[in-house]
Amino acid sequence: MTKTAKPPLLPTALPMLDTPAAVIDVPRMQHNIRRMQSRMDALGVRLRPHVKTSKCVEVARAQIEAGAAGITVSTLKEAARFFDDGVTDILYAVGMVASKLPAALALRRRGCDLKILTDSVASAQAIVAFGAEFGETFEVWIEIDTDGHRSGLVPEGDALLDVARVLHDGGASLGGVMTHAGSSYDVDTHEALVAIAEQERAGCVRAATRLRDAGLPCPVVSVGSTPTALTAEHLDGVTEVRAGVYVFFDLVMHNIGVCTADELALSVLTTVIGHQADKGWAIVDAGWMAMSRDRGTQKQKRDFGYGQVCRIDGSLVPGYQLSGANQEHGILSREGEPDLDIVARFPIGTLLRILPNHACATGAQFPEYHAVAPDRDLAVWSRLHGW
Amino acid sequence: MTKTAKPPLLPTALPMLDTPAAVIDVPRMQHNIRRMQSRMDALGVRLRPHVKTSKCVEVARAQIEAGAAGITVSTLKEAARFFDDGVTDILYAVGMVASKLPAALALRRRGCDLKILTDSVASAQAIVAFGAEFGETFEVWIEIDTDGHRSGLVPEGDALLDVARVLHDGGASLGGVMTHAGSSYDVDTHEALVAIAEQERAGCVRAATRLRDAGLPCPVVSVGSTPTALTAEHLDGVTEVRAGVYVFFDLVMHNIGVCTADELALSVLTTVIGHQADKGWAIVDAGWMAMSRDRGTQKQKRDFGYGQVCRIDGSLVPGYQLSGANQEHGILSREGEPDLDIVARFPIGTLLRILPNHACATGAQFPEYHAVAPDRDLAVWSRLHGW
Repeated sequence: MTKTAKPPLLPTALPMLDTPAAVIDVPRMQHNIRRMQSRMDALGVRLRPHVKTSKCVEVARAQIEAGAAGITVSTLKEAARFFDDGVTDILYAVGMVASKLPAALALRRRGCDLKILTDSVASAQAIVAFGAEFGETFEVWIEIDTDGHRSGLVPEGDALLDVARVLHDGGASLGGVMTHAGSSYDVDTHEALVAIAEQERAGCVRAATRLRDAGLPCPVVSVGSTPTALTAEHLDGVTEVRAGVYVFFDLVMHNIGVCTADELALSVLTTVIGHQADKGWAIVDAGWMAMSRDRGTQKQKRDFGYGQVCRIDGSLVPGYQLSGANQEHGILSREGEPDLDIVARFPIGTLLRILPNHACATGAQFPEYHAVAPDRDLAVWSRLHGW
Repeated sequence: MTKTAKPPLLPTALPMLDTPAAVIDVPRMQHNIRRMQSRMDALGVRLRPHVKTSKCVEVARAQIEAGAAGITVSTLKEAARFFDDGVTDILYAVGMVASKLPAALALRRRGCDLKILTDSVASAQAIVAFGAEFGETFEVWIEIDTDGHRSGLVPEGDALLDVARVLHDGGASLGGVMTHAGSSYDVDTHEALVAIAEQERAGCVRAATRLRDAGLPCPVVSVGSTPTALTAEHLDGVTEVRAGVYVFFDLVMHNIGVCTADELALSVLTTVIGHQADKGWAIVDAGWMAMSRDRGTQKQKRDFGYGQVCRIDGSLVPGYQLSGANQEHGILSREGEPDLDIVARFPIGTLLRILPNHACATGAQFPEYHAVAPDRDLAVWSRLHGW
């Protein structure tokens, strides 16, 4: 990882926190938000951030203030929370099933402009039947599969038109098509990312074209993942982009190559609680309960274990990682040769910050974030938990 | 996995839950509690369950009603919660540091019989200095390393006596020695487990003997992990055992060989939300946010992906697993050949239950459990989150 050239950030209140604690570097977060928004502005598309990364209203507010148009959520509980905070344009980006329609209806009845998603005739039929029963015109988007990694209908198949007709003929509002190029997480060269971004764009635009050619409405063409959003060469035919993890970035994104080390805005503050000096280990109070079990860098070009070690001011300590983790114990060690001076380097009581593999997973381990900015005290930002 | 011979458990309320949901099979949990308690009774030792697995007062109450003597916690927040629920004898089983002493003092001043832990002269000095300053006699246990996997002092080293003398001479109450054979998670034969259990017992007893031979008190000799607790052939010299995950068990424990499939008491209720029929995939709404990112069976004799599929009544569907997971999407597939009848087998809306790799990690993803028993309605049991 490259070293940061920016001045370190050390609010005087940071050493007062109980550890482990999830710390947001607010200037970095704001930089990341501006970076993505300005790129979307330049590409001529709207940005609909995926709030599943932060699950935090203060973070979403910062995204909206910077220009985001609506949000994407991964659960209906998120939709309710962010709607309560004043966000009305919300896409629930997981396939709808009958059992969740009452909760979706309740949100719409309260005034939420909730859009729901499907990729099957069966669910489309359930949506229109429920809509007819309760007199509700649901706005439904159709999920498109552009890389075979998860859900969605292929752009060229018959099922796309079948589903669209069930919705349209059944009285639902056909809002558009959406896709997510999850396979962008599996590559780490600019060329490969550009290719996946183009595949994502072209596939989703093709699906929209097929719907329109069949006389069906398709106002929205929604694509996105953080890696493809940051590498797409153009987004012709696309109306909006969804991306989530860019707001914090993480070591997985760093390995993919779409951020620098000094853009990582989420870290876990931890205390050194012991050593195994002959092994070169420091034991810290950030175990997997704090870091999460996510080992997303394991298959990437550089494996960071359970996280990269930084000093309390956020500056990197190159070569030092959490190499192992129990529930409340992290094992901090040097790559390669053991550091036999580990006790002197990181005495008991030393505060460190650990950059996580995957910001969405690490954030989820904490009920709240501690947001730090140089010009003000720590702020506590609550985070949504559960369903 | 072997099939269960027990009658399936299907409270009528289960299909009413929002999914994903963490479900406790209460009869199985009670069976697991009785099994461990009766084994400890037969071995002539006290049982101090580790509540880090459930973080739930109703579960701990069931353990105490069955005969447990005190509890073990992994955070001071757990200590406060369980003390508020009436538990007074609490071991905080993570090495103490100076910054956490005020919280420990506050608990003791409220009447909590909190025992704290150390494995270093530096922390021992901090404890006695703080105790002297605030007029508090802390009860301190010394952590022993019997298998090199994490923290602790080796039984034969000078440091053991050094730490003990700092504590004793400084006015702390030397409560005893404790060890945790974490390496028992790395084996899967009875013979290997018996050997690790004996190494754990013998090392901890040896440490106690050295303290006593030096004229120092050592009333408690505490060992434990679920695998060693269930396989130790005798516990001569040991006074208490700590174990946590036995209360629910999980697929990792099943692979280790210390439980049968019908003892797994925690599962995640999930709904089928879609398919990729040509790949033999069903998509469910339990992704890694519900299951956790724990892939503990990956290195074991059988890899269960993100979990083993069961019907809603808890009966196994052999060969079907969550083979992949995104945040709110699980990919359910058959091992080996794709199931091209997956749509008919698991139609959209089907409710399933997924057995997790690691109960401690999966439970942590949920704010509450839904406890099911055949003779009564579902109960909602809250779960502690964060630090």
